[in-house]
Amino acid sequence: MRLRVDALPRSSGDAGYQTYADTVLVVDTLRATTTAGVYLEQGADSLYLCPDLETARAFAGEGVVLAGERNCLPPEGFDFGNSPLLAREARFDNRTVVMSTTNGTLAANAACETGKHVILASLRNAHGAARKARERSSEEIAILCAGNAGRVALEDVYTAGVLCEYLLAMGDFTLDDGAQIALTVRRQFADPMEPLSRSRSAENLVNVGLEADIAVCAEVSSSTIVPVFTGRSGVALIFRAA
Amino acid sequence: MRLRVDALPRSSGDAGYQTYADTVLVVDTLRATTTAGVYLEQGADSLYLCPDLETARAFAGEGVVLAGERNCLPPEGFDFGNSPLLAREARFDNRTVVMSTTNGTLAANAACETGKHVILASLRNAHGAARKARERSSEEIAILCAGNAGRVALEDVYTAGVLCEYLLAMGDFTLDDGAQIALTVRRQFADPMEPLSRSRSAENLVNVGLEADIAVCAEVSSSTIVPVFTGRSGVALIFRAA
Repeated sequence: MRLRVDALPRSSGDAGYQTYADTVLVVDTLRATTTAGVYLEQGADSLYLCPDLETARAFAGEGVVLAGERNCLPPEGFDFGNSPLLAREARFDNRTVVMSTTNGTLAANAACETGKHVILASLRNAHGAARKARERSSEEIAILCAGNAGRVALEDVYTAGVLCEYLLAMGDFTLDDGAQIALTVRRQFADPMEPLSRSRSAENLVNVGLEADIAVCAEVSSSTIVPVFTGRSGVALIFRAA
Repeated sequence: MRLRVDALPRSSGDAGYQTYADTVLVVDTLRATTTAGVYLEQGADSLYLCPDLETARAFAGEGVVLAGERNCLPPEGFDFGNSPLLAREARFDNRTVVMSTTNGTLAANAACETGKHVILASLRNAHGAARKARERSSEEIAILCAGNAGRVALEDVYTAGVLCEYLLAMGDFTLDDGAQIALTVRRQFADPMEPLSRSRSAENLVNVGLEADIAVCAEVSSSTIVPVFTGRSGVALIFRAA
């Protein structure tokens, strides 16, 4: 089986775009894929990932929670931002959480264009997500890092390395160059708070007073909830706990 | 001054494309930017980098050497492939070498779209290229890795790390996430042959019997020749030794 790490998402229109043959783990550690998992942990029935705010707002209604961010902060009229800390203090039982974030949503869309199985992964659910990917895949597991505004994100490459380590403990893989780089980065930092704090994404959170989110995103395998792609509603991608 | 490493090139049409504010070091260690330097070392007057074979062939004529590769091998009717080993055994005095390679040419074009100063860098000219970049830049040095067919290349990220180390010895920089990753990868491998041999690019070279090129590409700072972008001729990018 092949293990592949893509440092950034590409869309089908981009130069050098390559399709996903099998399973894709989408990683946006600070914070979209972390927070997505927390909504499901806190009782949400499903997550709708929307590419833009207008699409998200169109789902507003009874039983729906609008959540997301632009420049780290909740968009106007939204019920929640993208904070795993605040999400963990609330309950979302039987609710649909409609999310729109910048980097994570873009990466999830790139994965769902061609991937057979798409899973949202973070440090918090790393072990569960790796196990689920291993179960479902027969040919290739790709880890797709969301990055930060088109630039490689240290925290996502680190998380990809943690996922690679779990996967290597579960079976044999041939590693692509991206996976070798991610493992090198993972082995460089014993404490996950270190790469997360040094990242540009962390700097952006500090600038808006949301630095307490970083410690929640740095928890390793504290959750067993794994959001898995189940279908679409218009342009929204639907994820449910598996 | 900012120090930035981009693991892959993006074109202005791609999602997440970001412009280059200042100086760009283009890296395609296996083999385009290595071989480009060797042509200049061996007497070539200038290099023309062409995006496709037809453009390259249109320059054919007296004093012109056609060089390049598709799938690692010389295209039909070309005088040379992309082998630094073979290039080093020839002389190109007062010749124009017209090159067309896959990944390196794409990256050079992405850099020249917006970069003020564009330099071709490899392990062989790493110290000279870093010094030239430092001299010319006032705001940002970006290291743009060519990658391999749209995927991150271990050897390019390693070379980017070597360039970052030289630059950090020359002055203060704020490092982006990509630069932190490149430095981590560089520090992981004491012997440059190790990351170069483990890469997918190396595998491709072994498959066509060109593995002897790898050792030439792994020489660190054995050359002081630095190819610098000086202008265009149609869609060809012109580089000369500086």
